[in-house]
Amino acid sequence: MTIYLDGEELVTLLCTPEKTDRLALGFLRSEGLITEPDDVSSLHVDREKGLVEIELKDKNILAGRLFGRRMITSGCGKGTVFYNALDSLSSNPVANDLRIASRQVRLLMNELQARGELFRLTGGTHIAALADCSRLIIAFEDIGRHNALDKIIGESLLQGISTDDKIIVSSGRLSSEILLKAAKLKIQLLISRAAPTSLSVDLAEKLKITLIGFVRGKRFNVYTHAWRISGD
Amino acid sequence: MTIYLDGEELVTLLCTPEKTDRLALGFLRSEGLITEPDDVSSLHVDREKGLVEIELKDKNILAGRLFGRRMITSGCGKGTVFYNALDSLSSNPVANDLRIASRQVRLLMNELQARGELFRLTGGTHIAALADCSRLIIAFEDIGRHNALDKIIGESLLQGISTDDKIIVSSGRLSSEILLKAAKLKIQLLISRAAPTSLSVDLAEKLKITLIGFVRGKRFNVYTHAWRISGD
Repeated sequence: MTIYLDGEELVTLLCTPEKTDRLALGFLRSEGLITEPDDVSSLHVDREKGLVEIELKDKNILAGRLFGRRMITSGCGKGTVFYNALDSLSSNPVANDLRIASRQVRLLMNELQARGELFRLTGGTHIAALADCSRLIIAFEDIGRHNALDKIIGESLLQGISTDDKIIVSSGRLSSEILLKAAKLKIQLLISRAAPTSLSVDLAEKLKITLIGFVRGKRFNVYTHAWRISGD
Repeated sequence: MTIYLDGEELVTLLCTPEKTDRLALGFLRSEGLITEPDDVSSLHVDREKGLVEIELKDKNILAGRLFGRRMITSGCGKGTVFYNALDSLSSNPVANDLRIASRQVRLLMNELQARGELFRLTGGTHIAALADCSRLIIAFEDIGRHNALDKIIGESLLQGISTDDKIIVSSGRLSSEILLKAAKLKIQLLISRAAPTSLSVDLAEKLKITLIGFVRGKRFNVYTHAWRISGD
């Protein structure tokens, strides 16, 4: 799916063709190009051609925000944009009012796996969810773990759901890119069935985000800020 | 790791810091910027700063090849470059002389998993290998499945190993990006423990490449050109 922003080609995402409007909005939010639904004046999805056309209300903001952002990347990485982002994130830290019991961590992961319908059919997709301590609020699947998260971000933007008191639950690795998308939403806790990367552990430590990985059966690993987790 | 090509920043890869010289060479080969080791006049790795500086012999070739290639991407996708590449690949198809027995497919996957040392330590890495029908020739691990493959491509370039009669064995999903890297090397067969994407199945069909996925225990799926596989 190719996103055109104000008539300019912005990005091509290889994705699962559901909720592509959410994906486009979430991608723009993650990249800092919009902060609320009202920043968008029109959004048009052409499924046949595999494109989404978006017009923004304020064209001048866009020009400033895009400056210097274009780069080639490979695989699951996105390059040096992170390190600029880190400065502004550090000066505006996440809250520390979220606490969760171990039992609830396991329940959220069980619920995530139960929701993976496309994964049961194909064995080839990721799933991500926005949750509070007791249940999943939104869950979407996609071939890419970044896309699954962006779809959730787009949906929470549209529904006006606050994210700074919520949890991200994911089937996929917690890379630095995933961590930074979550940090921009002031997420305090990320839970994954898979591994975090060393870079995301370092970033989570600095940004005061709790990272939980390898939630499997009754066990899981807490990598950072374990004070948010209680015994049971 | 940031690759500088003739003094210009080309790309930043999030990778595992082993064999970064192979990764850089393999990435350039995959992107069509070099075709043999002699295209490179110097390569310098600065591990502390996380960068690789490469000088090419022929600066003019580079300018032509890079034209129009820069784009933002996300997650595991790389965008529209594929479709241009496809035209030239189709007119120059892979050979059809490779045959393999089912038993050998399973043996190669067993050997791949036995070689995954970093995976056993971390649970967070991919492994890719170049193989012939009886054994793995080169195997490297990396946080990204694209990087693991590029490391192999770099190593086979340095060692002068022919690839058009070889097999790629991978722990990770067979995305279109992986398929196209392999197609440029005239690989006839890709074997994975994971799923292929629908786009890579379509491309493999057109390019006459055999795709095998979900090799687990005694079972596997053959998605395209099954005539290369014999009963046992």
